[in-house]
Amino acid sequence: MIELAALSFLNVIHDDLARVEALILEHPHGRHEAIHWAVELMAGSGGKRLRPALVLLSSHLCGADIDRAVFMAAAVEMLHAATLIHDDLIDGALVRRGVETLNARPHPWSPATTVLTGDYFFAYAAHLASQAINVQLMQRFSQALMTICDGEMRQMFDKDQQPTTSALAQARDEYERRIYAKTASLIAMSAEAGAVLAQPDNCVDSPSAAVFHAYGRELGIAFQIVDDVLDFTADEETLGKPVGSDLRHGLLTLPVLFFLEDRPDDPVVGRVLRGDRSEATIQEAVRLIANSPAIEQANGIARRHVQWAKQALDDLPALECSSAPYRTALLDLADFTVRRRF
Amino acid sequence: MIELAALSFLNVIHDDLARVEALILEHPHGRHEAIHWAVELMAGSGGKRLRPALVLLSSHLCGADIDRAVFMAAAVEMLHAATLIHDDLIDGALVRRGVETLNARPHPWSPATTVLTGDYFFAYAAHLASQAINVQLMQRFSQALMTICDGEMRQMFDKDQQPTTSALAQARDEYERRIYAKTASLIAMSAEAGAVLAQPDNCVDSPSAAVFHAYGRELGIAFQIVDDVLDFTADEETLGKPVGSDLRHGLLTLPVLFFLEDRPDDPVVGRVLRGDRSEATIQEAVRLIANSPAIEQANGIARRHVQWAKQALDDLPALECSSAPYRTALLDLADFTVRRRF
Repeated sequence: MIELAALSFLNVIHDDLARVEALILEHPHGRHEAIHWAVELMAGSGGKRLRPALVLLSSHLCGADIDRAVFMAAAVEMLHAATLIHDDLIDGALVRRGVETLNARPHPWSPATTVLTGDYFFAYAAHLASQAINVQLMQRFSQALMTICDGEMRQMFDKDQQPTTSALAQARDEYERRIYAKTASLIAMSAEAGAVLAQPDNCVDSPSAAVFHAYGRELGIAFQIVDDVLDFTADEETLGKPVGSDLRHGLLTLPVLFFLEDRPDDPVVGRVLRGDRSEATIQEAVRLIANSPAIEQANGIARRHVQWAKQALDDLPALECSSAPYRTALLDLADFTVRRRF
Repeated sequence: MIELAALSFLNVIHDDLARVEALILEHPHGRHEAIHWAVELMAGSGGKRLRPALVLLSSHLCGADIDRAVFMAAAVEMLHAATLIHDDLIDGALVRRGVETLNARPHPWSPATTVLTGDYFFAYAAHLASQAINVQLMQRFSQALMTICDGEMRQMFDKDQQPTTSALAQARDEYERRIYAKTASLIAMSAEAGAVLAQPDNCVDSPSAAVFHAYGRELGIAFQIVDDVLDFTADEETLGKPVGSDLRHGLLTLPVLFFLEDRPDDPVVGRVLRGDRSEATIQEAVRLIANSPAIEQANGIARRHVQWAKQALDDLPALECSSAPYRTALLDLADFTVRRRF
């Protein structure tokens, strides 16, 4: 169920992650049965639990109250789940993590109930976050959600824009901005949560908060680049969803941008850019890109961000010995991000 | 722009309401232009601002910090606006308050961007609420949102269920439960906000919070019943949207339930219940119900709830003289709810 928790370097928070899982399922009674069902489905769906792990590790490292941290860890996972429900609806995705999406289910499920279930997940996330009893954290939590929605809006409006060769650098900037917004902002917020929880409420930022934010931002960017690479190189079964889905939606990710830099006149990818979304063309374009140097170039950028994430932690104040395993886990987690195959 | 603020009994909070309006527009810079445009559209759309008015009146009555109350007032209005954006999308509503809905707009607007704009509004609402710097209030805020989404889910799943005559009493219970969830819960939360803000953080509930909650709950139920009556009796121009929209969506509101109690075998309404949604049938059913005693029966129930709302305020502790105008405004606001024609 908890894929990341199965990784040995996360043994240090194994029990906390289990509490997060239990807390999510301890969902208020008496809601419509469809809501209970959706929460259980989400809890059992084998998400990576990256965000809760970051909240818990930084909380241990900073000496924050772990009971409160468990609420916040559950909150960030629910927020993430809420955004996925609406994303899948918008993209018309039929499968996620090998499981049928809500929007793909038969009557009485519908686009309408999918919108509302996502909304409920947002509300439940805010409810869990408010139980961490920290105003600063609530402020960052809602700011992260604003940034995510803004990023999704950009993605939606930028889709299907064909970059000219001269505009590729600009497309790279826009790509980084977009993946910060849609992925790295929440990962950064999760990583800094422990530092925020550990400082007295309404106090100015501790230096640690900035360190953890930088770690999470770089980790999040690397994580999304790897996701975008896996959309070309993974097989469908490991990925839990069809490959090539970004291209199919007209979304130009880093591997495509590197490919175009090298082969601006490739006829197959050119056809995709001009709007040909036939399965044959998409699959041929995916194969071309997957077998091109663009993959290694994109992975190289991801590794560089992971390096920056790890370096950020050098700026942490001297730690007590008991904290060392949590710091090591954060370093291992960063390495895992670029090693993973799912 | 602010319809309620034009009512003389709200003069006491005129300047505060103007601050709420300005605050909403002081929206974080640098978002995608579509988001800025949507926030401005919402701010200028002439909502009644009932919920902000309640936050402000209860805050003045309870001696809460008005700067914080202004944030909370803006938050509840944004939350309300967020739910309307998703509601209109789900219902396929084309016009609200006389203005084209987001989902009805041409490219680049789409169902996808409408979902995301609603999500952004949720995030912005949570952001504003977090700036009221009160954990208790954040908890109630997120609880109200959970209740609203649960109510919407119920409404979605209960649609098109035909009540038999013997099940009409049960349908009435379900109706009350639904309108509490979708409307009265946020109005109750808005009304109690001032009492929550005025008490020290993390303190147990003051008796005033319960009084204001009861006031808001009864007011909210009355408000929704009147809305449901106006959906039959108002003209389209005053209402700012087509009449009969509930019936068109298979939603049985109080006027229909009273009508069916009296005339369970009416052939026209029967046809609607059996799924005939042709314009001619809907308009004939609307005309029949609008001219039946069901309207006065439903209005009678609304008046009873308004009476209960006003009586709830009798339980407030003795007030200082300076507070009297705010209490009077709450009483007048309750009376206005059943008098209004929009």
